[in-house]
Amino acid sequence: MFDYRAVPIEPNDKKILLIIIDGLGGLQRNGKTELQTAWMPNMQKLAMNSSLGLLVPIAPSVTPGSGAAHLAIFGYDPTRYEVGRGVIEVLGSGLTPAPGDLCCRANFATVDSTGVVVDRRAKKDGERMADEECRALCAELQRAIPRIDDVVVTIKPGKGHRFVVVFSGPGLREGLTDSDPGKEGKRPLAVKSLNPEAGRAADIVNRFIELSAGLLKRRERANFVLLRGAGLPPDLPSFSERYKLRAACIAAYPMYKGLARLLGMEVLECGETWEGELKALAQYRNDFDFFYLHFKEFDQAGEDGNFEYKVELLERFDEMVIPQVVKMGFDVLCITGDHSTPAVLRGHSWHPVPILLNAASARSFPIKEEFSERSCTYGSLGVIYGLELMPLLLAHAFRYGKFGA
Amino acid sequence: MFDYRAVPIEPNDKKILLIIIDGLGGLQRNGKTELQTAWMPNMQKLAMNSSLGLLVPIAPSVTPGSGAAHLAIFGYDPTRYEVGRGVIEVLGSGLTPAPGDLCCRANFATVDSTGVVVDRRAKKDGERMADEECRALCAELQRAIPRIDDVVVTIKPGKGHRFVVVFSGPGLREGLTDSDPGKEGKRPLAVKSLNPEAGRAADIVNRFIELSAGLLKRRERANFVLLRGAGLPPDLPSFSERYKLRAACIAAYPMYKGLARLLGMEVLECGETWEGELKALAQYRNDFDFFYLHFKEFDQAGEDGNFEYKVELLERFDEMVIPQVVKMGFDVLCITGDHSTPAVLRGHSWHPVPILLNAASARSFPIKEEFSERSCTYGSLGVIYGLELMPLLLAHAFRYGKFGA
Repeated sequence: MFDYRAVPIEPNDKKILLIIIDGLGGLQRNGKTELQTAWMPNMQKLAMNSSLGLLVPIAPSVTPGSGAAHLAIFGYDPTRYEVGRGVIEVLGSGLTPAPGDLCCRANFATVDSTGVVVDRRAKKDGERMADEECRALCAELQRAIPRIDDVVVTIKPGKGHRFVVVFSGPGLREGLTDSDPGKEGKRPLAVKSLNPEAGRAADIVNRFIELSAGLLKRRERANFVLLRGAGLPPDLPSFSERYKLRAACIAAYPMYKGLARLLGMEVLECGETWEGELKALAQYRNDFDFFYLHFKEFDQAGEDGNFEYKVELLERFDEMVIPQVVKMGFDVLCITGDHSTPAVLRGHSWHPVPILLNAASARSFPIKEEFSERSCTYGSLGVIYGLELMPLLLAHAFRYGKFGA
Repeated sequence: MFDYRAVPIEPNDKKILLIIIDGLGGLQRNGKTELQTAWMPNMQKLAMNSSLGLLVPIAPSVTPGSGAAHLAIFGYDPTRYEVGRGVIEVLGSGLTPAPGDLCCRANFATVDSTGVVVDRRAKKDGERMADEECRALCAELQRAIPRIDDVVVTIKPGKGHRFVVVFSGPGLREGLTDSDPGKEGKRPLAVKSLNPEAGRAADIVNRFIELSAGLLKRRERANFVLLRGAGLPPDLPSFSERYKLRAACIAAYPMYKGLARLLGMEVLECGETWEGELKALAQYRNDFDFFYLHFKEFDQAGEDGNFEYKVELLERFDEMVIPQVVKMGFDVLCITGDHSTPAVLRGHSWHPVPILLNAASARSFPIKEEFSERSCTYGSLGVIYGLELMPLLLAHAFRYGKFGA
């Protein structure tokens, strides 16, 4: 693939707004997709003056994880820069790992007196562990294990039995196996290093597990911790270095803020509502060149298989978001998703994601007053890859110089 | 990307005509592009029997320089073969550099008695330097500096204060800084080598600058030369080697002829008019397998922001060129551009370029009797890359064998 770093960046004062509707793309139910079902008069109007197309976040037929999809969309090859499960969970917890921090997913489990895992989720009376219990146990562990040798330990509780652990100290390298045996009736595994450089990390993680087990051993249940997905945050060249853009992130969910922070974007305070996000956008409109505005709920509706709710969210988006962002005025406005989450599939999918590009320099030959998987299939942008999105936005912002003489 | 050199070439007597309309693609003004505005009945008729599509010369969203775009279209990866500014200017002057020739852009400037550049363009009474003065000064320099040691110096005047210098001799390598300080009020810079191999080249170029300064020092103005963009022509495998085609270039502008010569095409004498170009094509129709026919004026109209004139040129092309080339009869006729130059943007742009392919083997499913960015968006060729164009032409000329058993 063409190496876009060969194109000279020419900063100017044009403003770019990239709206990511998480899980935007869908599939037909009774002949119509979520986008085709929703009544979106403002989007339809906008589509008539925009270029439409389809976005393949990573590669055709590949279902992306959210982290990998976002990296690709921001122009960072996800096959080169890996954001592992541990890092994603840590970002989602609201922590932002520093370079070299070993990030792990963790959860409380129940072992019997012989040390065999009898419940990987430490349920209580068949019910999922309560968030408060998780918080209390995490606080206890954090008090008792603030550090191991020169490695600082940071523990943050999540939902139910889940939490994250970050190990900050010198010499921690990637390449660890999981301690979670993956099924009940087995003993937890010792964490092993898959390469010699990861030896110290394995040792620290195993000692953490041992120390926790000692602290929790008198408990009937939730008396053991399982760790997996250990990894370091990728060493990413910053967004401002790559694109010479002053970039801001407006997102309600911690994972997306964390990812933006890893890329060196400024994360704006916006609360957890769409109103809050739009208010932040209006407030900081003049202070940045590039805005990444993220809306999460669509993906959850898709994962829940809730077609109607996804349609309702789209209609709300049309009524509330579109008029405001159009009024604020951006030189380049792009609306797309990080991946498709068709409600009928109840999960992320590989289907290309609708994309709309509004700019003075956009070719617009709409075949229909519609923004949907259908109209995007016939759009003048054609099919573009995730890694080609930032170049497209930079070109239409006239921030991309000529290649070659 | 697939390496097309793996496909066997099978020569035959089919003839290919590739027409490059420089800067062909456009953008809407009042809802219509240049191509949509022009009245082109012959093109419309041709489009009905052709495959249409869009050509991305280098990569999506990348604005190509003319040299890089042409290389790509001829099947030479411009990220691998670089044609620098110095080489482009030398080609444009009508000189064809040999392998190893160091090519530089140069211009006369004015320095004050302390050696500070007071006018980078050596203007006279605020007016741009006259072509005749440039010619006279170049002749004077050429007489006085025919060579430096074993390096032959060739000087050729350009427009106004501009000229080119070619250094031909052993051991000249790329990797030089410019002597042009880039702004007035500074001293010219000594040319430095960016790698040890380029040491000799830096020495020769600096001596040329010094010798010129000595010759010009009694002058009030235009008393110094600035050099930049020093580079060697790329070492390109020839067109006939690559494709087993006897190829001819018909172009009015020196740069395109020079580039074709670098590729080993035969450059046909055709004067500077479209009539001359068409006459050459008719005359040599039977003597070559492949013709590259170039029309330049469209790009200039686009760069001037002259929408109407670009439309007028398209109409003239339709009336004059299409009927003649159709009548001459080529097995494969392709009409496209090296890049878009939308009049509304007054410059090269990244927008994909309309392409028309006429051949007995072309699939043709036109949606409308039209040749435009719009109809090409819905064309059966889809979007193709510059590097995929020659394979397409070779395939339709049945000159491309089977890949694999």
